[in-house]
Amino acid sequence: MTDAAASPGAAWPGACPAPLAPLAGQVALGHGSGGRLGHELLKRLVWPAFDAPGNPLGARGDAAVLADPALGGARLAFSADAYTVSPLFFPGGDVGALAVHGTVNDLACAGAVPRWLSAALVLEEGFPLEDLARVLASMRRAADAAGVLVVTGDTKVVERGKGDGLFVVTSGVGVVPPGTPALAPDACRPGDVVLVSGTLGDHGVAVLSARERLGLGPDLVSDTAPVHDLARALLAAAPGTRCLRDPTRGGLAAALVELGRASGAGFALDEAALPLSEPARGALELLGLDPLFVANEGKLCAVVPEAEAEAALVAWRAHPLGARAARVGRCVAGRAGGLVVRTPVGGQRTVELPRTDPLPRIC
Amino acid sequence: MTDAAASPGAAWPGACPAPLAPLAGQVALGHGSGGRLGHELLKRLVWPAFDAPGNPLGARGDAAVLADPALGGARLAFSADAYTVSPLFFPGGDVGALAVHGTVNDLACAGAVPRWLSAALVLEEGFPLEDLARVLASMRRAADAAGVLVVTGDTKVVERGKGDGLFVVTSGVGVVPPGTPALAPDACRPGDVVLVSGTLGDHGVAVLSARERLGLGPDLVSDTAPVHDLARALLAAAPGTRCLRDPTRGGLAAALVELGRASGAGFALDEAALPLSEPARGALELLGLDPLFVANEGKLCAVVPEAEAEAALVAWRAHPLGARAARVGRCVAGRAGGLVVRTPVGGQRTVELPRTDPLPRIC
Repeated sequence: MTDAAASPGAAWPGACPAPLAPLAGQVALGHGSGGRLGHELLKRLVWPAFDAPGNPLGARGDAAVLADPALGGARLAFSADAYTVSPLFFPGGDVGALAVHGTVNDLACAGAVPRWLSAALVLEEGFPLEDLARVLASMRRAADAAGVLVVTGDTKVVERGKGDGLFVVTSGVGVVPPGTPALAPDACRPGDVVLVSGTLGDHGVAVLSARERLGLGPDLVSDTAPVHDLARALLAAAPGTRCLRDPTRGGLAAALVELGRASGAGFALDEAALPLSEPARGALELLGLDPLFVANEGKLCAVVPEAEAEAALVAWRAHPLGARAARVGRCVAGRAGGLVVRTPVGGQRTVELPRTDPLPRIC
Repeated sequence: MTDAAASPGAAWPGACPAPLAPLAGQVALGHGSGGRLGHELLKRLVWPAFDAPGNPLGARGDAAVLADPALGGARLAFSADAYTVSPLFFPGGDVGALAVHGTVNDLACAGAVPRWLSAALVLEEGFPLEDLARVLASMRRAADAAGVLVVTGDTKVVERGKGDGLFVVTSGVGVVPPGTPALAPDACRPGDVVLVSGTLGDHGVAVLSARERLGLGPDLVSDTAPVHDLARALLAAAPGTRCLRDPTRGGLAAALVELGRASGAGFALDEAALPLSEPARGALELLGLDPLFVANEGKLCAVVPEAEAEAALVAWRAHPLGARAARVGRCVAGRAGGLVVRTPVGGQRTVELPRTDPLPRIC
């Protein structure tokens, strides 16, 4: 019983979050977060700058889906991400693997088969060439494993003190196979089931532990991995899937708040059902972090109709990356973007996105 | 007579450039240049990391051309560029317009009609939000004017002192119309004609003047502009066009050295034929800079068969951005990537790419 508190139609208890500060002044670290400040920057400044009728940016997907007479019947997915993770090398991965996986995963969330990547590097003067070679080799391994080619790119260098070693920006193009269900953040309906493909929070705490040299043990590793096979397996097993998200910055909570806002509904989660690895559980407790807000880099969150939830779980669990897939909650009627969590002792708490991430520069 | 010194089959006088230093140690500013050091980084570290049979990266184009059964008959162009220009605002443009034009122009060099862009922003904590709004508005204006949509992106923030205000990374996808001639850097043949679509060096000296507050006058402005219409006009008028290049970092010289290396030929230019704006000519003289090495952001360089050169020039000159298009030299037999310049007084000088750019962070 992972979703008793989240039956369809459950009343929404949460109040509106505190009003946002006006968007003026200077860029703050939180503007790059998965929290409210990051959303505010996008909503007030970035999205309005580019929105236009017919622009697929309006769908607010992890990737844009491109369809055009010039493409014949093909539909493409197109996505871009900047990686400013610190440190560049962390247990379980590095900025290179992360940059490949992150863009592959954004394309996967559009139902696409990822095919081609670009890689732009912003190097700081003085960065060791040996480290650059390591990152490039890691990108190649990750690309090979995900079946994508890095086909184009750019390399720039800035003066010492004007960068931070290396930023990697990848973009990617994938092909959405014919017959792939349309996925949309506004398609979630009360009664739908929330699934996650595995344990939560591993990436965020592994990077934090490496950055702060917390020495939380050799078993605490990032989950960075490509999830496109998981995505295709899910869509085959659950063709009615409403939406897929790659819960990175801001964690599962930010992904669900976004889907809820778009769909005009809320979500209710069962805390006891959230899969956690033992090393991440220990680290999260020690650091006082809520796994709902911590970034993942090799996980999917799916909202599926109740009737397809079991088939979806079976499909995920048959995949090595989905062994710990779980049903963690439901879509519920109520405040758009609201999120409640049923605690293990039977209580219920309302979750509001924090103003900013607890962990900056995690991806 | 712009090309008397460059008759087909002219012997190649240049000697090999000095051997490159081994690639070890640390990233230097020059590794991001259009000079030899930048080429060395790509050739020894970046390209080998990603090269593979069937990877269009091997064509070394400004954009990769993607063809695949999944696309039906469509061919796509895909390109990415990081913009670290300093200052962010300069006479005639800003980083936003530059980032849109640069990627549009890379796609244009593949013969594509640019269609969709991504925009990734790496912001430094403390950057004025008002400046960000200006940059985004400039990107939108440039995108609208070029007929492209910004459809996806990402926003990251790094701590104060770990960035330089704003880096913009754009990538783009274009559609190569059916019947577009294949363009390839290795297709240049002795006797072919080198054309440029307009004046050279305006962008580089305008940015330098703004950065160093040289006060070289209000008429010295960047040429930043989208050249996709010029590219399509050229390909219609000169379907035998060998290759198109957007002579940015390293200027016309770097573009031609690259084409010459790929084609196993050299180029001979007529210095008196190089079109220069009056403000740029004055600034270049004052600063002691060779226009061949200075970046452009709204120009094309084309290598075309002699028989089509006149038609190509007519097509360019009919376009507002091509009014000062000129025939500036020829492809010649000789050392691969060699470059000679006939001086206005009838002499001849061999041009070697400098180890690094005279002007870092120009784009």
